[in-house]
Amino acid sequence: MNISTVSKPHERLAEILSGEMDAVNDLIRTRMASEHAPRIPEVTAHLVEAGGKRLRPMLTLAAARLFDYAGDHHLRLAATVEFIHTATLLHDDVVDESAQRRGRPTANLLWDNKSSVLVGDYLFSRSFQLMVETGSLRVLDILANASATIAEGEVLQMTAATDLGTDEAIYLQVVRGKTAALFSAATEVGGVIAQASEAQVKALFDYGDALGIAFQIADDLLDYQGDSKATGKNVGDDFRERKLTLPVIKAVAQATPEERAFWQRTIGRGRQESGDLETALGLMGKYGTLAATRKDALGWANKAKASLGILPDHEIRTLLSDLADFVVARLS
Amino acid sequence: MNISTVSKPHERLAEILSGEMDAVNDLIRTRMASEHAPRIPEVTAHLVEAGGKRLRPMLTLAAARLFDYAGDHHLRLAATVEFIHTATLLHDDVVDESAQRRGRPTANLLWDNKSSVLVGDYLFSRSFQLMVETGSLRVLDILANASATIAEGEVLQMTAATDLGTDEAIYLQVVRGKTAALFSAATEVGGVIAQASEAQVKALFDYGDALGIAFQIADDLLDYQGDSKATGKNVGDDFRERKLTLPVIKAVAQATPEERAFWQRTIGRGRQESGDLETALGLMGKYGTLAATRKDALGWANKAKASLGILPDHEIRTLLSDLADFVVARLS
Repeated sequence: MNISTVSKPHERLAEILSGEMDAVNDLIRTRMASEHAPRIPEVTAHLVEAGGKRLRPMLTLAAARLFDYAGDHHLRLAATVEFIHTATLLHDDVVDESAQRRGRPTANLLWDNKSSVLVGDYLFSRSFQLMVETGSLRVLDILANASATIAEGEVLQMTAATDLGTDEAIYLQVVRGKTAALFSAATEVGGVIAQASEAQVKALFDYGDALGIAFQIADDLLDYQGDSKATGKNVGDDFRERKLTLPVIKAVAQATPEERAFWQRTIGRGRQESGDLETALGLMGKYGTLAATRKDALGWANKAKASLGILPDHEIRTLLSDLADFVVARLS
Repeated sequence: MNISTVSKPHERLAEILSGEMDAVNDLIRTRMASEHAPRIPEVTAHLVEAGGKRLRPMLTLAAARLFDYAGDHHLRLAATVEFIHTATLLHDDVVDESAQRRGRPTANLLWDNKSSVLVGDYLFSRSFQLMVETGSLRVLDILANASATIAEGEVLQMTAATDLGTDEAIYLQVVRGKTAALFSAATEVGGVIAQASEAQVKALFDYGDALGIAFQIADDLLDYQGDSKATGKNVGDDFRERKLTLPVIKAVAQATPEERAFWQRTIGRGRQESGDLETALGLMGKYGTLAATRKDALGWANKAKASLGILPDHEIRTLLSDLADFVVARLS
């Protein structure tokens, strides 16, 4: 697929689903308002209006559209998913002490950590109200479990990030928590609310799960080989922030004792010196871990596409398949 | 009632409900465990095992017992309520930058803000799973709304605490958020799960709401007139921390321009000097605001007791009535 000559699949999805996305955006604006605490819409508007791609709510709408769902609960669920995502971002920025998000100063910098923590909690509670309104216990069960996976993954990441004992299995669990759990919940609830069959609901879950994992692995890989102009990040940010991601985990697994001592000093203890990033990149090159990581990402993207087979033959299905290609197409 | 010669009502409730409270404690321990992220039970155990009074889960059990509920969903709901409470405490300590809670160092001090934020999120998600297991949409609706009231109240408190424009209506809303919303949800869901009548469910809500408000007003009053040995707090902590509570709000409402300037300097701008607390106490004395606050607290305790009339004549009902007396009995 030549992605430069066609519009991007998420843009085509956004076009097809634009009427519903407008309704979701209205719902988001209405529900994040608080009559009594004007700080809430200030903080959330900063994030919500910052123009993320709204990928997660779009996945919910797309899944429902695949089954020609005619109700309006999918709008509530799409808004739910975006609220959970935004709340997670607010709390992440406190945890990471981030200064920038989506190219703008973070809420914790513009206001304070308090606002980020409490407004995040508020958005979680609003998402909870929205999903209860669907009256579907199955949907509530899916989202409750996704929330627990997300929260557990975040805690796990906090302790695992600088621990050289972190292996690929733990990495995968962190990735499921920080990214894939909400992707898979987004697609799954779209199918559930549209009364897809059990097998189709499972396929939607599998698609979201694999897409989210491919997406996150690609992100972690681009940190080491991306074009900083395109990604808006500097090469090696994760290394400097001592985040043990897949390219490094693969290099640590094969490290000589001397190399292991290097990783222990730079990531484990955070004693970094000038030239360390170059050494790290050299070690990744030595073991071919960037290429191996790319292969993993492509594998997950293929897994995502393969799970679509059981779903109705529909323009949306083609776009979901293209989307899986797209998230890894940026990898050289 | 001479509270020194009888055991305290919450202790008697704990005795009567001890079998069920043991089951709730087991459930709390099981559900806060995380196979993959050992930091989670470390942090929560620090709080959960610290031996709070478990007042909120006890209210849920008490409400269900009033209607001879024979199932086990009330155990899940009691654990839910305690998890929400614990999560709120974790986030509050980050927001307040507290160093002590229940006489021990706070989690954010022992670990870090990250752990408090993320483990709080984890407990919220666990509480969500527990309540979904009851299969009651009505219960989910009540708890979703309570969560939103709590979160909104917390944000409101953050902005209202140092704003002299904060009046008694805003104070009441903050108090509902920080205390009463979870009390009233705790009693209400106990009645709902036990299939109490609509009028009785409403009475249980009203009782929890008024009890929570009485409890919080008493707490705020004791900050200015308590015995620091009994309360474990120093007189005037709220003043030093620039928290606008009822005794001060009442004094501000009647202040001369000169007095208003004093409140603006000390609470509004936080420019406190030695002798300011004495001046503040003098102004509260001048307008009798401590006595007026006590009267408000007693009024809410009476409202709590009055709402019990419609509930079954039961030993538990008597204890709930005594509990309302007890929370204000410590006020001189």
